[in-house]
Amino acid sequence: MNLNSLKKYNKKDSYSYTLGVFPTVELLTRQPDSVEMIVFHPDWYGDTQKRLIESLAEKSHIPLWESAKTIDRIRDKENIFVAGVFRKYDSTLNPSRSHVVLVNPGDMGNFGTILRTCLGFSFTDLAIISPGVDAFHPKSVRASMGALFSANVEYFSSFEQYRSRFSERDFYPFMLKGAIPLKEVKRDSRRLFSLIFGNESSGLDDSYLEMGTSVFIPHSTAIDSLNLSMAVGIGVYEFSERGA
Amino acid sequence: MNLNSLKKYNKKDSYSYTLGVFPTVELLTRQPDSVEMIVFHPDWYGDTQKRLIESLAEKSHIPLWESAKTIDRIRDKENIFVAGVFRKYDSTLNPSRSHVVLVNPGDMGNFGTILRTCLGFSFTDLAIISPGVDAFHPKSVRASMGALFSANVEYFSSFEQYRSRFSERDFYPFMLKGAIPLKEVKRDSRRLFSLIFGNESSGLDDSYLEMGTSVFIPHSTAIDSLNLSMAVGIGVYEFSERGA
Repeated sequence: MNLNSLKKYNKKDSYSYTLGVFPTVELLTRQPDSVEMIVFHPDWYGDTQKRLIESLAEKSHIPLWESAKTIDRIRDKENIFVAGVFRKYDSTLNPSRSHVVLVNPGDMGNFGTILRTCLGFSFTDLAIISPGVDAFHPKSVRASMGALFSANVEYFSSFEQYRSRFSERDFYPFMLKGAIPLKEVKRDSRRLFSLIFGNESSGLDDSYLEMGTSVFIPHSTAIDSLNLSMAVGIGVYEFSERGA
Repeated sequence: MNLNSLKKYNKKDSYSYTLGVFPTVELLTRQPDSVEMIVFHPDWYGDTQKRLIESLAEKSHIPLWESAKTIDRIRDKENIFVAGVFRKYDSTLNPSRSHVVLVNPGDMGNFGTILRTCLGFSFTDLAIISPGVDAFHPKSVRASMGALFSANVEYFSSFEQYRSRFSERDFYPFMLKGAIPLKEVKRDSRRLFSLIFGNESSGLDDSYLEMGTSVFIPHSTAIDSLNLSMAVGIGVYEFSERGA
């Protein structure tokens, strides 16, 4: 891999980018072994930030390159002056932790927000049931503010595949038709669990009503539904308060 | 006001737009008296949606115009084929309801999400302490999915101005340095209250520690802070469950 071969991100590539200071710092701190190089634009004047990134890269023996052309090619906004180039890596869900399961999530911005919020409430393990967003897309990474690098995100071809590996835990699908309001869920704090959410437009289909204890978040009739990231945020908040 | 005079939205104009089907339906349903006209693009093929909008407009004697040029000028995305043109109107906070107060909110997308989530938990009254987002900007309106038209949003030049009018209620500023974790707030359910949130990057300054009962949402050290819309969403969820 060299500077001239770097093009705008493509899902099929084996590498991706952190675009901007914040996710690049998180990348260097959390996943230094995956970093190929750091590239910055000669117009970058963020002195303190630059020194921070230089020292983190140096610590892990990661090369730094200055190249206006490369940044121009790979950035998606004019105000991006630094990028991390990293190899995509596999994550495996930790079987001894509770999980969040996203079924067919479609929006990278929502996904990033969800990832960051989950991390904030100590949910470090997220399953994505395919098809779903590309977790390594620079937009997902940026929306997560680099939280991706502190989490385990694993893809499954179907919910059945997920369930067959993690059968010994309690499932809580979140559904408008759910049986129990979130506040009234009584759970055994010694047991692991998985909180399951559908996609932005269609939610979970009725088959999930049988997948465990279905939960709903009561809201007024003035809106059709909460948006997905809000529903996940409220869900992980409520469950984490009782020990994630 | 005529079709040819309509330009891309400007904050100084006395009118604004709903861009797209969903917010336009909400506008026609909730604030028909403010609507000047509906404009659609000749390429619009959404039959059912078109009939719905036509019947809502007809019911309120609102003119419909077909004009590719006008839609081209005012839309911000290629996939917008219908727009509502409405006069901006003043709202006044309802003194007999609990409020959400946003101090200097900066992001229209966040603001729209907040508005919609608040409405979902029956908080219909939002104060904005200036400077803050333009609630009538088409981007705010769209992010709220039209929830703006079911809410009272009032601007105040300072928090003092807000407080002097609504002094007989309990204030809960949300702050990283807050005194009490959200779950442990004990409140008198007969009293009105206001939930107060700072802006996206700086939060509330320390002076708000003295403004009532300061609250924090406990989160892990893996993130700096929750994003603003998530914090508001969790706040209104928690408070609404005890009677908003």
